[in-house]
Amino acid sequence: MKLYDCAMAPNPRRARIFLAEKGIEIPKVEVDILEGENLGPAFLAVNPRGLLPVLELDDGTRFDEVMAICRYFEDIQPEPPLLGRTPVERALVECMQRKMEFDGMVAGSEVFRNTHPQFAARSIPGGGGEAIPAIPALVDRGRQTLARFFGWLERYLERSPYLVGDHYTMADITAQCAIDFVAWVDIKIPAANSRTQRWYESVAARPSAQA
Amino acid sequence: MKLYDCAMAPNPRRARIFLAEKGIEIPKVEVDILEGENLGPAFLAVNPRGLLPVLELDDGTRFDEVMAICRYFEDIQPEPPLLGRTPVERALVECMQRKMEFDGMVAGSEVFRNTHPQFAARSIPGGGGEAIPAIPALVDRGRQTLARFFGWLERYLERSPYLVGDHYTMADITAQCAIDFVAWVDIKIPAANSRTQRWYESVAARPSAQA
Repeated sequence: MKLYDCAMAPNPRRARIFLAEKGIEIPKVEVDILEGENLGPAFLAVNPRGLLPVLELDDGTRFDEVMAICRYFEDIQPEPPLLGRTPVERALVECMQRKMEFDGMVAGSEVFRNTHPQFAARSIPGGGGEAIPAIPALVDRGRQTLARFFGWLERYLERSPYLVGDHYTMADITAQCAIDFVAWVDIKIPAANSRTQRWYESVAARPSAQA
Repeated sequence: MKLYDCAMAPNPRRARIFLAEKGIEIPKVEVDILEGENLGPAFLAVNPRGLLPVLELDDGTRFDEVMAICRYFEDIQPEPPLLGRTPVERALVECMQRKMEFDGMVAGSEVFRNTHPQFAARSIPGGGGEAIPAIPALVDRGRQTLARFFGWLERYLERSPYLVGDHYTMADITAQCAIDFVAWVDIKIPAANSRTQRWYESVAARPSAQA
């Protein structure tokens, strides 16, 4: 088993933190997205869409979406549970995970990719066709969506110390990775959002945050 | 238990098809997205993000993301399996489901929302902040992404009659709903994509497609 990874990228980091929380170590193959290595022939033979992370099993089966990788490890090693322990909790984690992904991670990606010169012809992650040029208006839309995201986050954390109940889950991982990602484009947790600040300090202090 | 639904919208339809395949019937509350009822005070009290579908349990617990709703029903009634039967199959369904969602459903939403006059101030689904204006350049980007999506779909269907192996899963549901959705903006399965045409005829003929 091996993980095609990219140290600087937020989606592979979600998988690395998940694995670190489970105490699972697997070999990693580094692929440099910034230099476009993910769109070169070697990696496109692994994943034609050019996206990371990818988990490859010993029989060659590949999982090319981060949530599928996490779900697979949760299935084969349930402890500690990161995707919920009961049907209701699993659904609540899925709800929150997706909110953090769409409102945080995807919005951050819009701001980053449509700002950064390395991605001027790669507005959409990955490959598979003609160049898709950056759309400057997405930077503003992404910033507006992230302002909403931070508002929601502060509300969600009124109810519980973690995003779903009293323990750390995948929803926290996605939110944490989205926040560290948008710091690259100088977007920070608003100073007035004290619950989010406290939550962030606590998740950033976990050993897995170094993964 | 009840489902907040919108008959014309593609995401609620994913949940309705999933439930129909399971043979589960639950009461539905119709909310008109086109007229903005999802952004009115009554529905925002149910889901502050203004998105559909939402499943409400008898104890008031709410799941406000379609995949969470589907996962909950798969957990409480596993047959027929629509999210995979083994850890590997579940991960493969998740991979494919997400591809159909990001490359098909989200791209279709970009084309639709940034074209349709009813959504001129609602480029991003749902509410929660200031108006986010339509971005005309997203129409082209969405169309390019959908061209990729149809290319992938034809390739995936080389390997198996359904998107993951030999039976119908959530990945097929999402793809089918994305295709019916993009027909509204006159985007169709390319005539040359014969496997996709055949697959589409087969999934559209299932009784659940009427849901």
